[in-house]
Amino acid sequence: MIPILSVVGRSNSGKTTLLEKLIRELSARGRRVGTVKHHYHGPVTVDVPGKDSWRHRQAGAYAVALVSPEMLFVVRDTPPGLSLEALTHLGLFGVDLVLTEGFKSGPMPKIAVNRRAQQAPLLCGPADHLVAVVSDWNSGAPVPHFGLEDVASLTDFIEREYLQQAGRPALEALVGGRRVALDPQAEAALVGAIRSLLGDRGDPSAGPSIELRIPGQMP
Amino acid sequence: MIPILSVVGRSNSGKTTLLEKLIRELSARGRRVGTVKHHYHGPVTVDVPGKDSWRHRQAGAYAVALVSPEMLFVVRDTPPGLSLEALTHLGLFGVDLVLTEGFKSGPMPKIAVNRRAQQAPLLCGPADHLVAVVSDWNSGAPVPHFGLEDVASLTDFIEREYLQQAGRPALEALVGGRRVALDPQAEAALVGAIRSLLGDRGDPSAGPSIELRIPGQMP
Repeated sequence: MIPILSVVGRSNSGKTTLLEKLIRELSARGRRVGTVKHHYHGPVTVDVPGKDSWRHRQAGAYAVALVSPEMLFVVRDTPPGLSLEALTHLGLFGVDLVLTEGFKSGPMPKIAVNRRAQQAPLLCGPADHLVAVVSDWNSGAPVPHFGLEDVASLTDFIEREYLQQAGRPALEALVGGRRVALDPQAEAALVGAIRSLLGDRGDPSAGPSIELRIPGQMP
Repeated sequence: MIPILSVVGRSNSGKTTLLEKLIRELSARGRRVGTVKHHYHGPVTVDVPGKDSWRHRQAGAYAVALVSPEMLFVVRDTPPGLSLEALTHLGLFGVDLVLTEGFKSGPMPKIAVNRRAQQAPLLCGPADHLVAVVSDWNSGAPVPHFGLEDVASLTDFIEREYLQQAGRPALEALVGGRRVALDPQAEAALVGAIRSLLGDRGDPSAGPSIELRIPGQMP
């Protein structure tokens, strides 16, 4: 499973600034970071650079992709009931971890950003899966605290707790009755897609065994 | 497998216009259409409506998603070696079929658009997986021909050849040793993701059997 962490905090607490710093630090350490943000207010309007792709979407296409050797761009309907896990493993395939901005509800581990000047308590506590606080004061919450500028230590914490322990997912695959080896990225994508589509959002190391069979030809 | 069809033709032959008509007709018939187009020339620049998502991308995020209840927007690095099949089943999950604009090479079935006024032969033939011609003259190619305005008949052909025969993919899934039922959309997404990540691009009805096992806890 690709780890998903939520950065939460009140308006103007510095969520986006912290995310930028985390993205820079994690990327510098060779991690592929995905991010997810909700857009609540009003329609999303996107200026699509390929005019033809825009015409496809205007004609009613459910999903439109524009792909260059470097960059992939997708604009599409949101499937009903789309989970953050399914979005991560399908739409954001290939990332090492996902950081969300917002998403206070839900079972993801949360990093709360809080500033003394806002004079307001944390948005969530350990019962809401709070795992760390980034702040210029000690909130008293029984989780690790990091200074607003101490991104290196926060990144160490994220790597130690969510990236190093994850290890490689294990998958055995038989195609036409013969064992096939997958490269680690494809294997991780496949295990993630399977677990999320089966609705398993738990700890992968403690997750249930999964066996899938797609009938077809055997040699 | 989600069917993938390529609309090919010379510049100004009317590929985008035909795609728009096909998207409208297929969508009116309840089909969820995905489209893919290559962007060859110059960098893709996208004006992201959520300024924060743009800041995430600028900070180096590998993939950025902005999600509203209606629309999902993803801008990301293109993974090396990304196949059209993997893009379809991961990035465009949930569609019923994909139409590409261009992509003349590759094994996908092709619909060639051609106009008499261009005074040029078809871009491809049956050896290149040509399955239909849309034109105002008879090219002589041994495949069905459709008039430039006869989108209803072309859509009938696509539905008959690529959508009705596909049927439901069959998948047996055991989680923790217990059989689970998937809704058809999740099942199709899972089968497609598995086949494409395993590199199987063939006819699903004649494809090899696939068995996957993810070790884990049994009850």
